[in-house]
Amino acid sequence: MRTYLDCVPCFVKQTFDACRMVTSNEVIHEKVVRRVLAKTAQLSFDDSPPHMAREIHRIIRKECRNDDPYRTMKTHFNEFCLSLMPRLRKRISGSADPFETAVRIAIAGNIIDPGLSNTLDDARVTATIDDSLRRPLAINHLEALRDAVANAKRILYLGDNAGEIVFDRLLVEELPFERVTFAVRGKPIINDATREDARVAGLSDMVRVIDNGSDAPGTILNTCTQSFLRVFDHADVIIAKGQGNYETLNDVDRPLYFLLKAKCSVIAADLGCEIGSIVVKGTNVTH
Amino acid sequence: MRTYLDCVPCFVKQTFDACRMVTSNEVIHEKVVRRVLAKTAQLSFDDSPPHMAREIHRIIRKECRNDDPYRTMKTHFNEFCLSLMPRLRKRISGSADPFETAVRIAIAGNIIDPGLSNTLDDARVTATIDDSLRRPLAINHLEALRDAVANAKRILYLGDNAGEIVFDRLLVEELPFERVTFAVRGKPIINDATREDARVAGLSDMVRVIDNGSDAPGTILNTCTQSFLRVFDHADVIIAKGQGNYETLNDVDRPLYFLLKAKCSVIAADLGCEIGSIVVKGTNVTH
Repeated sequence: MRTYLDCVPCFVKQTFDACRMVTSNEVIHEKVVRRVLAKTAQLSFDDSPPHMAREIHRIIRKECRNDDPYRTMKTHFNEFCLSLMPRLRKRISGSADPFETAVRIAIAGNIIDPGLSNTLDDARVTATIDDSLRRPLAINHLEALRDAVANAKRILYLGDNAGEIVFDRLLVEELPFERVTFAVRGKPIINDATREDARVAGLSDMVRVIDNGSDAPGTILNTCTQSFLRVFDHADVIIAKGQGNYETLNDVDRPLYFLLKAKCSVIAADLGCEIGSIVVKGTNVTH
Repeated sequence: MRTYLDCVPCFVKQTFDACRMVTSNEVIHEKVVRRVLAKTAQLSFDDSPPHMAREIHRIIRKECRNDDPYRTMKTHFNEFCLSLMPRLRKRISGSADPFETAVRIAIAGNIIDPGLSNTLDDARVTATIDDSLRRPLAINHLEALRDAVANAKRILYLGDNAGEIVFDRLLVEELPFERVTFAVRGKPIINDATREDARVAGLSDMVRVIDNGSDAPGTILNTCTQSFLRVFDHADVIIAKGQGNYETLNDVDRPLYFLLKAKCSVIAADLGCEIGSIVVKGTNVTH
């Protein structure tokens, strides 16, 4: 998916939000924003938003001299989501359709997105779970996903954010998880989940965890390692969580299922749904 | 008031909103946004937001080859506000305190701001009037303004936006209007009122109308004409409408009364009030 002009204000906002997380020095904030503005003026809008975000966050990390500005936020939401786990697991096992409930909770976790808002708090996560359990799926390829998972020998699950990854674990528990490989980003980028977050979420003890080698907040295939691409190319089903994975893989011809919440007008327009919608969208699925 | 980093996303959004108003050519949209990003990267954040907006909208007008991108919007809101006038005038004359009611309606008109949102519609204007009539003033120097106006020989009223200027006229009707001079911007800038809008609002037949000679969306004194500055320097009371006038004049030592609605977090923080607050704030007024 290309980048729209509407994405640019979010990039700028994300820039100063990130800077403020790691330093109160306003001279640095201003310097970083200036560098990001100048860089964004030169980037290609034909590339996806995660292409742009990758370049922008490289500037932020370098100028703020901080390899992982979102580490505190990631730790907080990992811990908060872990605290919800026992209750959510009961909700899944006690529901009429545990697979669907787990899918919906995993999608709810997608709200943990600092690009979206700096007003995100624990209460909003909880409210989003409740909403996600009730709201109709705006694109509903859930049965196709259920069938694909049942028949797949190799399932690749592409994670998205820290915190959210705890809810992904709950969905992995509903999959034939001995056949699941879980992939995280290769390096810290925004609040995206890395190996550390997979470990904290307990995924590393459950399934094979790999990283894609990339510092993009999505899956830009030509920035991923060969070892990741081998797994990607040979998977029978790929569950791709979140906007970043959708934005970078929506044109890729693989058996992908995108699980996400449409959090901005750009992605909602692309998917043909309302902002706030929840979506299970399979590539080439028509039923 | 200086420009905050938080203002930059709004500048960018305003850029593509303005471009889209005048052309559907996305090549032009992208070119303008790139030029605005590059320019903003170089501007001084020590200057006020209207300083920056002035530079940005010069780029927009030049690249879009349109001297007045907001003309259609301005005409629409002038007409809409004129259609409300008879009803609002009755509301003012029938109220316990016509002066206060007129002040509140004039402040409500301040919602007509494309920098704020592109979802503004007639219904929101009407709802804002109702809200503005009920809501407590977050800063309340109304009595000081009432006294100042009663004792003033020369009252200068600095207008803000088209549409809104119709409500300003309703407040001018409650002033000793033979002593009022009404000032508009010197050239089209965003949806700010110019001489044409003062004429449509009926102000030109009522009071002396001058323009400030400037294309800034505020009152940047060193961009105004000498003839405007003479009026400004000799006024006994200056009523300054809207955020742009506040952002450019809040540090000026003149008998200013700012009438505005705090429409964004930056101005709300500066004023020490909540977003959405309505304010009558006099310079050096402490009671």
